[in-house]
Amino acid sequence: MKHALPVTRDQDFAAWYQAVISEADLAEESGVRGCMVIRPWGYGIWERIQALLDAEIKRTGHENCYFPLFIPLSYFEKEAEHVDGFAKEMAVVTHHRLIQQDGRLVPDPDAKLEEPLVVRPTSETVIGAAFSRWVQSWRDLPVLINQWANVVRWEMRTRMFLRTSEFLWQEGHTAHATEAEAREETLKMLEVYRAFAEDCLALPVIAGEKPENERFPGAVATYSIEAMMQDGKALQAGTSHFLGTTFSSAQNIRFQNSEGVQELAQTTSWGVSTRMIGGVIMVHGDDDGLRVPPRIAPHQIVIVPMLRDGPEDAAVLEYCAELLGALQALNAFREPVRVLLDRRPAKAAIKRWGWVKKGAPIIVEVGGRDVAGGNVSVLRRDRLYKADGKLDSAILSKADFISSAADMLTDIQATLHAEATGRLHGNIDRSIASIDALKAHFAASAKPGWAEVSWSKPTGDALEKVVQWLKSEKLTLRNVPLDAAPAEGACIFTGEPAVERVLVGRSY
Amino acid sequence: MKHALPVTRDQDFAAWYQAVISEADLAEESGVRGCMVIRPWGYGIWERIQALLDAEIKRTGHENCYFPLFIPLSYFEKEAEHVDGFAKEMAVVTHHRLIQQDGRLVPDPDAKLEEPLVVRPTSETVIGAAFSRWVQSWRDLPVLINQWANVVRWEMRTRMFLRTSEFLWQEGHTAHATEAEAREETLKMLEVYRAFAEDCLALPVIAGEKPENERFPGAVATYSIEAMMQDGKALQAGTSHFLGTTFSSAQNIRFQNSEGVQELAQTTSWGVSTRMIGGVIMVHGDDDGLRVPPRIAPHQIVIVPMLRDGPEDAAVLEYCAELLGALQALNAFREPVRVLLDRRPAKAAIKRWGWVKKGAPIIVEVGGRDVAGGNVSVLRRDRLYKADGKLDSAILSKADFISSAADMLTDIQATLHAEATGRLHGNIDRSIASIDALKAHFAASAKPGWAEVSWSKPTGDALEKVVQWLKSEKLTLRNVPLDAAPAEGACIFTGEPAVERVLVGRSY
Repeated sequence: MKHALPVTRDQDFAAWYQAVISEADLAEESGVRGCMVIRPWGYGIWERIQALLDAEIKRTGHENCYFPLFIPLSYFEKEAEHVDGFAKEMAVVTHHRLIQQDGRLVPDPDAKLEEPLVVRPTSETVIGAAFSRWVQSWRDLPVLINQWANVVRWEMRTRMFLRTSEFLWQEGHTAHATEAEAREETLKMLEVYRAFAEDCLALPVIAGEKPENERFPGAVATYSIEAMMQDGKALQAGTSHFLGTTFSSAQNIRFQNSEGVQELAQTTSWGVSTRMIGGVIMVHGDDDGLRVPPRIAPHQIVIVPMLRDGPEDAAVLEYCAELLGALQALNAFREPVRVLLDRRPAKAAIKRWGWVKKGAPIIVEVGGRDVAGGNVSVLRRDRLYKADGKLDSAILSKADFISSAADMLTDIQATLHAEATGRLHGNIDRSIASIDALKAHFAASAKPGWAEVSWSKPTGDALEKVVQWLKSEKLTLRNVPLDAAPAEGACIFTGEPAVERVLVGRSY
Repeated sequence: MKHALPVTRDQDFAAWYQAVISEADLAEESGVRGCMVIRPWGYGIWERIQALLDAEIKRTGHENCYFPLFIPLSYFEKEAEHVDGFAKEMAVVTHHRLIQQDGRLVPDPDAKLEEPLVVRPTSETVIGAAFSRWVQSWRDLPVLINQWANVVRWEMRTRMFLRTSEFLWQEGHTAHATEAEAREETLKMLEVYRAFAEDCLALPVIAGEKPENERFPGAVATYSIEAMMQDGKALQAGTSHFLGTTFSSAQNIRFQNSEGVQELAQTTSWGVSTRMIGGVIMVHGDDDGLRVPPRIAPHQIVIVPMLRDGPEDAAVLEYCAELLGALQALNAFREPVRVLLDRRPAKAAIKRWGWVKKGAPIIVEVGGRDVAGGNVSVLRRDRLYKADGKLDSAILSKADFISSAADMLTDIQATLHAEATGRLHGNIDRSIASIDALKAHFAASAKPGWAEVSWSKPTGDALEKVVQWLKSEKLTLRNVPLDAAPAEGACIFTGEPAVERVLVGRSY
């Protein structure tokens, strides 16, 4: 069986990942350090993610706003822990004009900013400043807002979608009168992310609380959803933070409660980014390229006419146009089906393999023989090959295909989710009861998956010791699953009585 | 007649504009120099603009991408005219890390970038670099792309929505094999903008070519749509540029034509921004606040229950919920009607005036008496008062309102457009035949509107002389309308034979 990519997952997973991105025209290096160009197919997936998640963010009562890209240094100085977390990787604007000097452009020394500005790495500080203007009384609470924006973190080692200097994301920010309400919000949005990942991205995830060492700088509690890539590594695919009064005290978000007493608001923040697309690639991709879950596919069905530069071409194109119209009138997932008729002049086989690599869920080919017989040739991207290694292209009557297309999309979405769910749950070892067994587990296989182990939830130096040992084994703590079984016995790291179960794994 | 704003248009138009923005909760100063916070009602209008315009951009064959925020200085050095146009107002990133020094955060001198990066003021250079990778053969053309993004121009004097250091926009960029095709694209997108402004924003505009002195830096030809504000000033609401080979030669966008010969691609770019919201405010606002055209209103109908903290409240709320459901099932402008039931605990009159100031197209009030009679009280934002100065609130049966609501929205959209169109066409003086008459025209009135005059289309120094004289009169050349009558007689500026008609006016 010959595959469409130059490298397979088994040969070199990292090279395969780059090959998918390149061959599916998802993104490319931009020439600007650490920044990528997101091409139409990649951006189209992001637009679908935005549309679906935005609807959920609004359904849960949040409104979109837009806050400044630039944050004055003084905003960061107010919150020491937060700035410590980000200072090492901030892009700093220091000048507002360029001049020519010896034939080169240089920042104008006469146009130096009095106070340098940081390009936002995240917006708690600047949004907190707005909240402090908006919130005076308990009647002004809760404040529930979100923004879709670009952010910059000057990463030293970058990888497309997973870690880029600039990336696109949404960041929700809320302020509440009580800790209980803010904690409830934090978990509500974690659940929105979990359900979105499962239902829309077909990405099974484990939702849980991050250990102390993995908390967002300034957070009281950080929760994440963790997805398992096909190489067994974990990808943190979204986070939700309970921030307590860290930012309300730094940015002075105070309100008069119903008894007339001044209180600090309790805030939260939560975000997902273009990183999710990296997760979709590494969970659903195969050796022929990407497989896009139908709910986020820019085109769910692509019609490829097989033209021969002959007199029958007109009839083929007319037949395809009719098919296009009939399919566009259908609904799948309560939305109109997204169909493309690929009229480009290239050969049908080249176009077919282009769409295979891009991962369009259904590819329909139509030639003169299909027109004569009233048929179409249907290729499902989730099951490309038959057992004998040949392409599993099915001839269906046009009418049958039209009446089954929406169900087929639903089935492809479910199949991708089921495959990934099986892989996730089949690759979490819950039986490991000692540090030696843990070490052996991760040494025994190239794709060891994760281990869920009992631990005593150490803090401070004791936790740091555990983290350093894990680091020496190239392992990290992922999260404490919300739905894990109760812990029993001793902590495998400290030997003390275990209080909860924590996930351990390699990670991106 | 008492109005909801603290200042009227006639008293102080500039102060009125700020008052609308503030009282309608559209946006606010952020505390970051020249940058605003766009609040939910303002951002909701932008989301509607995005959705409607994006559909047109896609319908005309363009795909969305995303390109880097940062542009290396060397990209700008390749195109002298372009850099001259923007160098004076560029935000420059020079460092990638902060450190603590004497208790303050400062850029780390050890983390200075080898090559400073500019925060994009526009993306011709970085997108041109991508095009040069994408285009090899005539088969790769045309390239038709768009991006929705933030851009930064370090403006010295800023005004919310109209001129801010950071703003949101879309920028389309295309590359073509021939000049004719690129020129056609430039005019096609100008027409998309014209139709969008008229149909969706209810903004009548004059589409035309900008004179040489107003061209985009690097463009061969710049076209604009110009809208007339209620103070008679012009607002450039969108531009489309034919760039010729300026950027393809600077960025090396070459292709092999069908005869095997290397050629430079012909490129275009075109954009509209959050500035359009400023235009909507200044065209449709009145002394009670904003009036949002229904097509771009985040909520087209707002239901305000009149609650008395009494036993009848439950029936009122139930009645409102039924009304909400019935209205949400309607379509207007081929989309579901957007309805809000305002359940906030405030008094009905306070909520009503809040929605008047925000400009919700239809406000429906429901009290106990309405429930008993099966009625609703309907306030149309486009005709708030009766001739006697009282609120023009109409009692309609609930059934009648539901069956007429979609038509009412269509009528409000048409009314706003007709009002503004009458004002635009009633305030362009086409009879002025001398420079003295021009001067007298603009001296005679506080709201002189525009003049369309014959001119000889001078270039270079001769044009500069005209521009300087106009500047001394606080006037500018707006554009040469595409549909102007042929020019007759002599140029009012140079005395030479006139070749075309040009619009003159004060402007934002």
